[in-house]
Amino acid sequence: MEDKKEKIKKIKNDSKNKLISDEKLIKEGYITIIAGPCAIESWEQLDAGARVIKDLGLSYMRGGAYKPRTSPYSFQGLKEEGLKYLKEINAKYGLKTVTEVTDTENVEIIAESVDVLQIGTRNMSNFALLEKIGRVAGEKNKKVILKRGWAASIKEWLLAVEYITHIADVEVVLCERGIRTFETSTRFTLDLSAVPVIKKLSKLPIIIDPSHAVGQSDLVIPMSRAAIAVGADGLLVEAHISPDKALCDGQQSLNAKELMELVRQLKNIAGVIGKKIR
Amino acid sequence: MEDKKEKIKKIKNDSKNKLISDEKLIKEGYITIIAGPCAIESWEQLDAGARVIKDLGLSYMRGGAYKPRTSPYSFQGLKEEGLKYLKEINAKYGLKTVTEVTDTENVEIIAESVDVLQIGTRNMSNFALLEKIGRVAGEKNKKVILKRGWAASIKEWLLAVEYITHIADVEVVLCERGIRTFETSTRFTLDLSAVPVIKKLSKLPIIIDPSHAVGQSDLVIPMSRAAIAVGADGLLVEAHISPDKALCDGQQSLNAKELMELVRQLKNIAGVIGKKIR
Amino acid sequence: MEDKKEKIKKIKNDSKNKLISDEKLIKEGYITIIAGPCAIESWEQLDAGARVIKDLGLSYMRGGAYKPRTSPYSFQGLKEEGLKYLKEINAKYGLKTVTEVTDTENVEIIAESVDVLQIGTRNMSNFALLEKIGRVAGEKNKKVILKRGWAASIKEWLLAVEYITHIADVEVVLCERGIRTFETSTRFTLDLSAVPVIKKLSKLPIIIDPSHAVGQSDLVIPMSRAAIAVGADGLLVEAHISPDKALCDGQQSLNAKELMELVRQLKNIAGVIGKKIR
Amino acid sequence: MEDKKEKIKKIKNDSKNKLISDEKLIKEGYITIIAGPCAIESWEQLDAGARVIKDLGLSYMRGGAYKPRTSPYSFQGLKEEGLKYLKEINAKYGLKTVTEVTDTENVEIIAESVDVLQIGTRNMSNFALLEKIGRVAGEKNKKVILKRGWAASIKEWLLAVEYITHIADVEVVLCERGIRTFETSTRFTLDLSAVPVIKKLSKLPIIIDPSHAVGQSDLVIPMSRAAIAVGADGLLVEAHISPDKALCDGQQSLNAKELMELVRQLKNIAGVIGKKIR
Repeated sequence: MEDKKEKIKKIKNDSKNKLISDEKLIKEGYITIIAGPCAIESWEQLDAGARVIKDLGLSYMRGGAYKPRTSPYSFQGLKEEGLKYLKEINAKYGLKTVTEVTDTENVEIIAESVDVLQIGTRNMSNFALLEKIGRVAGEKNKKVILKRGWAASIKEWLLAVEYITHIADVEVVLCERGIRTFETSTRFTLDLSAVPVIKKLSKLPIIIDPSHAVGQSDLVIPMSRAAIAVGADGLLVEAHISPDKALCDGQQSLNAKELMELVRQLKNIAGVIGKKIR
Repeated sequence: MEDKKEKIKKIKNDSKNKLISDEKLIKEGYITIIAGPCAIESWEQLDAGARVIKDLGLSYMRGGAYKPRTSPYSFQGLKEEGLKYLKEINAKYGLKTVTEVTDTENVEIIAESVDVLQIGTRNMSNFALLEKIGRVAGEKNKKVILKRGWAASIKEWLLAVEYITHIADVEVVLCERGIRTFETSTRFTLDLSAVPVIKKLSKLPIIIDPSHAVGQSDLVIPMSRAAIAVGADGLLVEAHISPDKALCDGQQSLNAKELMELVRQLKNIAGVIGKKIR
Repeated sequence: MEDKKEKIKKIKNDSKNKLISDEKLIKEGYITIIAGPCAIESWEQLDAGARVIKDLGLSYMRGGAYKPRTSPYSFQGLKEEGLKYLKEINAKYGLKTVTEVTDTENVEIIAESVDVLQIGTRNMSNFALLEKIGRVAGEKNKKVILKRGWAASIKEWLLAVEYITHIADVEVVLCERGIRTFETSTRFTLDLSAVPVIKKLSKLPIIIDPSHAVGQSDLVIPMSRAAIAVGADGLLVEAHISPDKALCDGQQSLNAKELMELVRQLKNIAGVIGKKIR
Repeated sequence: MEDKKEKIKKIKNDSKNKLISDEKLIKEGYITIIAGPCAIESWEQLDAGARVIKDLGLSYMRGGAYKPRTSPYSFQGLKEEGLKYLKEINAKYGLKTVTEVTDTENVEIIAESVDVLQIGTRNMSNFALLEKIGRVAGEKNKKVILKRGWAASIKEWLLAVEYITHIADVEVVLCERGIRTFETSTRFTLDLSAVPVIKKLSKLPIIIDPSHAVGQSDLVIPMSRAAIAVGADGLLVEAHISPDKALCDGQQSLNAKELMELVRQLKNIAGVIGKKIR
């Protein structure tokens, strides 16, 4: 049996080498917008969404295959079938893909199918999952998005990153998605001050998920403008070709027209602070 | 003794008449920046600050004369002397002035000295004070800034406005200044989603106080950019000619150079959304 | 004009003398239960309630004359008429009385009518009110109940006490009444750990208001048992002769039968920890 | 491959049969106290602790073998070796044992070694883990303790139970362990009102973990008294033979003498409400 420290060292070296030539999820001077549906519901839905994203000149698409839902009786995702669709989207449109991982038992199969492994808010402190994702992402040269737990302090969030990076030198992108407070007029309270605080405490990139934070589609565009203005490196935004028919989180998803309007407005804000949208 | 309803009706009519010709604190197409020290400490301090504000082309100055402090043993403000200085600033520079009112017993004397009566976060639900301010502001044609209680829901905040406006038709401007959450890396959590929520629920103008929310001067500029981008109508920002010597809240105050940089950056953001700074 | 320090010193001396012979609100070895309606609605209502309280062997009755309500259009209390009824209750039954003070302008008139001045959660940081109450309570030898602000830290609460006691040596009793959290199944979250924390940090007595914290009458008895078991010195509990007809907070008020059951259960718990109910 | 519904049905039937003759973790008329160290550090430590627990007449011992820590560089537990010790404790003293499960990959091995599988606060919404524990607990007839997520609403907590019980009819015991609020004088805020709320909404038993909630050993006894008085079915309490040498959470652990004092005081409170300690 190989010694653990040796193993970690070996993975670290391997992953370092692999990352040298690779494109990062977050690029200096660019705002990366990752759009797509909360849940993958069918090939037609994902394909139609991908076309919109491609036409807007964006590079990343998100889509949930394994859905952690508050109730076990809600739609739980298409699972392996969803992963297959994500692979096809990548082949057809050249879009890089992002999906959530919820269990140590399927990290490998998901890493075979997408470019970016997302860790959801409920799993920020699921340390077994973080270490497994660190190992697999290191081996397969994948990027990781780590959402903030909805009641995690910024310190706890930064320590959670260590559970990934003490295993392998993977690119970890933080994602603020709203914290739980007493206010109920929005689903969560988007903590935009996390952006300058993170920039002060670390060198980690940070993106914003306005959709889960506000829970209402008409607040997504103003909060996205604020996210770019405050200095976030990107957005993770829910968009759906027919939000009113969505199986999950339709009320907070942008439709195609709204997504276009979002990109138009963000180009202006980004211009002012010397960045480009991609 | 005059009947209460009659009295209110009379005040309402009087105040309506007076407001017709008057300039509002918040003007369509403009971002109003109100800058100045947490507490007025001396004539020299206030005068030097006013010169900076005037030179930047801004129109409003804030300064605390009566300071509600967590401990009774902290500096409590210059009181009447501070009010005198505010009057002189207005005469000398033509700047409109803003100060906080903390007690029903000195609403009149303050209203004689400044243009805008500010209600602080600790007094949002001090209904006796709200009604008194409503009456005096109506009689003397003053504007009112109502800060959000740090644990007040948006609904409670809007109902607090009614305690002012059911007495007289005064211009009430809401001010979001951070809510109390579990996160301790900032003093409070600035809830910028309050801006689009308020715009959806009411016609009230809303400004942002980034200084008290974050509690650290280096976070004030990024959060101010976000405030303008999200659609706020103005800012209430702490600035001090020598923050390291301030008797109150120095660590969150901008110095003159930082205030200039703030205005420079905000002009750019405001330009993108079709607004001007004043 | 008399010097402020001299004035405070004089009041302190006066109040010290007066307090020597006086019964305290909180007595060693006793649990003090203060019951009564949220708002005084009529003489008949208050009188019927007083009879129940007297028959149960309790010594204190509460009743709101000035009601701070979230909306200005809700019932605001009987004001002076309510105070008159409280005085009559004291004369008729020998019950000591407790009522809330909401404005510096009527501290004196209230202090003429009742034994205990209550400062509500919304006014914990209304420092002008605290100082005025300190002065009047010192002069007239009244007791003060200071409720915790619903988003006040324990440190801020203890510092608020100083705003009263730096003016005069009055008996201040703290009252925990629930803090605001994300949980919505109760109106607020009753923070019973405040009791041992306060006992550790200070010598101040502390009572519990379970009614406002939970917002539902059927949770009041279990939470009251817990309050006594944890070491609280008393309770402030809403009781109404016809909760379903109450003009304010009926859903959280105990009826006469429930109040009797509360006292019966608390006697048992108090017995175990060597205390008596009064 | 067997159909999932069939499989669940079969497990449900099997588990129903097995449970018929079995002792429950929570028994009508009893308060179940589960005591023991945060982390198992050595055989000597666990054995000495077990002797104290046995001598006090208690039936359950807890001890962490796999420790989820905020930082990956903190002590992570003895893992398999810890499980072995727990098995030996059961054999030597007849104490039933409780330990936390943190990863789907070691549910089976843990279930071989202990009587009760505990799900920690960080994993309340780790649905993959909940379903796996439901399946294994059903097959092996184990009990499950589900701690409340520190920012989970009571509704979300009850829905999380469904992730376990829709797989098999296992005994699930809820455990309130403090929620995250703005107050920092305790580690978390113990929400004792969750007890009567849960009793109103469900038939599930509920126990209290005062140790993690308060984070200081001298608050544990008063909060435990309150927990029993409010109606909780048991306690999960940290106790260590030498708290000052503990590798984890020493500052909140009771020593042997304090644990004896806890049991003595709880017997009195339990007596008043017609229950016995076990």
